[in-house]
Amino acid sequence: MFEYEVLATQGRARAGVFHTPHGDLETPVFAPVGTQATVKTLTPAQLEELGASLVLANTYHLYLRPGDELVAKLGGLHEFMQWPHPILTDSGGYQVFSLAETRKIDDEGVTFKSHIDGSTHRFTPEKSILIQENLGADIIMAFDECSNPNDRAYTPVAMERTHRWAERCLETHRRSDQALFGIIQGGVDAGLRAESTRFIASRPFPGIAVGGLSVGETKEEMHAMLDVIQPLLPENKPRYLMGVGTPEDLIDGISRGIDIFDCVLPTRLARHNAAFSPEGRLNLMNAVYAADPRPIDANCTCYTCRTFSRAYLHHLISAKEFLAGTLLSIHNVHALIQLVNDIRVSILEGTFEGRMDGWLSTWKGNAERTLTTTGKK
Amino acid sequence: MFEYEVLATQGRARAGVFHTPHGDLETPVFAPVGTQATVKTLTPAQLEELGASLVLANTYHLYLRPGDELVAKLGGLHEFMQWPHPILTDSGGYQVFSLAETRKIDDEGVTFKSHIDGSTHRFTPEKSILIQENLGADIIMAFDECSNPNDRAYTPVAMERTHRWAERCLETHRRSDQALFGIIQGGVDAGLRAESTRFIASRPFPGIAVGGLSVGETKEEMHAMLDVIQPLLPENKPRYLMGVGTPEDLIDGISRGIDIFDCVLPTRLARHNAAFSPEGRLNLMNAVYAADPRPIDANCTCYTCRTFSRAYLHHLISAKEFLAGTLLSIHNVHALIQLVNDIRVSILEGTFEGRMDGWLSTWKGNAERTLTTTGKK
Repeated sequence: MFEYEVLATQGRARAGVFHTPHGDLETPVFAPVGTQATVKTLTPAQLEELGASLVLANTYHLYLRPGDELVAKLGGLHEFMQWPHPILTDSGGYQVFSLAETRKIDDEGVTFKSHIDGSTHRFTPEKSILIQENLGADIIMAFDECSNPNDRAYTPVAMERTHRWAERCLETHRRSDQALFGIIQGGVDAGLRAESTRFIASRPFPGIAVGGLSVGETKEEMHAMLDVIQPLLPENKPRYLMGVGTPEDLIDGISRGIDIFDCVLPTRLARHNAAFSPEGRLNLMNAVYAADPRPIDANCTCYTCRTFSRAYLHHLISAKEFLAGTLLSIHNVHALIQLVNDIRVSILEGTFEGRMDGWLSTWKGNAERTLTTTGKK
Repeated sequence: MFEYEVLATQGRARAGVFHTPHGDLETPVFAPVGTQATVKTLTPAQLEELGASLVLANTYHLYLRPGDELVAKLGGLHEFMQWPHPILTDSGGYQVFSLAETRKIDDEGVTFKSHIDGSTHRFTPEKSILIQENLGADIIMAFDECSNPNDRAYTPVAMERTHRWAERCLETHRRSDQALFGIIQGGVDAGLRAESTRFIASRPFPGIAVGGLSVGETKEEMHAMLDVIQPLLPENKPRYLMGVGTPEDLIDGISRGIDIFDCVLPTRLARHNAAFSPEGRLNLMNAVYAADPRPIDANCTCYTCRTFSRAYLHHLISAKEFLAGTLLSIHNVHALIQLVNDIRVSILEGTFEGRMDGWLSTWKGNAERTLTTTGKK
């Protein structure tokens, strides 16, 4: 279990398979985000139809509501949300730092107040693992501290704490049907990133995540950090770039050796009436689409593009019909999954390097994380 | 085209087939309502899967947004909303009387202000038919005046105007691929209902609708009116009871010779977190369901009941996830369609009269239109 096989490489890009208790994950893979045990507006049947294999759920949210113990009592997250394929949970760390109303961090853990009702809670590395064992995902994350990349003085403090917490997570974790991934921190400091990579790679994690990127640093800084990290990673473990990203980020990440991605971007954009397209990001609320009989993307094979016109989507948005969010989510999630699948095939066929610039230029117009969202959970 | 065949009867109940340009409608049939060219929260694929055959759309809403001329330009309503099966449009009359901000009625037509932007518009019988021809539904309705059943003095005035308008609709209507149904009015006055039935039945309408019921009268009054109407109707035309209803109303209506029903109730209840069930109407927001591993209805074959627990539905509602509305709509629409299908089979098999009391007692707890909704569009 949790063996990772590299099937082909092109430069640093890899195509592989990661074996999990809920089936083989073909990598590279893009995971849509189901924060509250649902990928917003989509049924599991729709997710399957659009080609999703891995879904991410958020520990912080599910701990607060409905509660990890209730989820465990109901048979775990797969049974609760009826997703029979692999699931990944984060550690709750990032959410505690970014969402909780007030938080106080010490070396033991973090005390915070719920964004729902203001009640006080405490996460420690041990507690995070316990919650994630209750939720029962196939891939779970070590509890880490994600610091502001621009706070250079604090970055090593958070990194060292992340390393100590990684050890405690390893000691705590018991379920052999879950792969516990370690998380690399170190901000945008090449030396710290190398140090963190070496530390995490030296520990018996079956997979390795890259945290603290796509959190406000520049694209060049993100690329530089991935360039530092990649040569120090073992070949036989999957690599997960957390919270990324845009179509362009996926292409850039895969070319730098990343295997797993997740991002709220496709479903969040859908709620903002926007769709990925080779013409650039379309905002279907725009009156220019009111009588447009074309699909979002004539070459897209998703249910939305096979079925509906831009004019109909514009009408649903104007009329404030929820179906708009569903149809745009189907398209946006499909677009990222299809892009990553196309790249996977090209790696297997040995054509990725020749096609990469074409993909980058096709999807460039969709690349700005900062247009309407930060691209983070 | 538009031939109606009675295949079997049981007392006054009928099982039949109505031939339309978009396929045969097996009656009795329940039509979910797609007011704005979408059955709220459901894709056409989901509607097909749950067994829908006929969908209703609202002329008033589609005239205002996106506009009937735009719908015509985009290929008509079937193409616009991608529903390849039969569609029914109402005349817009009921909406003008109930939704428009201000309205002034005269014998020529109705002047009203849009509920969207306050702009002034005018519907006449001719205009309603023109709009419905642009929308292109298989079944369209004569423009009528639905009066308050408790305003006994005004009821004959509205009825006589409805009759004059019915003649004008027949004169105006041109498309031979649309069945124009006449509408019986007459409030809760047996004499007026009989007069209206005789008048509408005497005109060359391929189908006959019963208007002005389920608008505030008692259940006993509705039944009494159906008992007056039924013996006066031709056998070879389908009969449509507009805006009805609850599970109990469907059973009662079929037993009084009705073939076609529509109602917003299943999707509206879904938005209020409620589900039809043999235990009575369930409100899944109720904390009693928080840890309930059972489906809404263990005997229901819909996607929601085959897949999800009450606990998961309760969680989605608590977390304000849109998926709750989708899953409850799937169940509620399926429940009514399945009930009507079961009744159809029982009429064909000759067992309806024996089973009717059982169905009434099973679904009684879901019967109150007035609990959370009036049951009207």
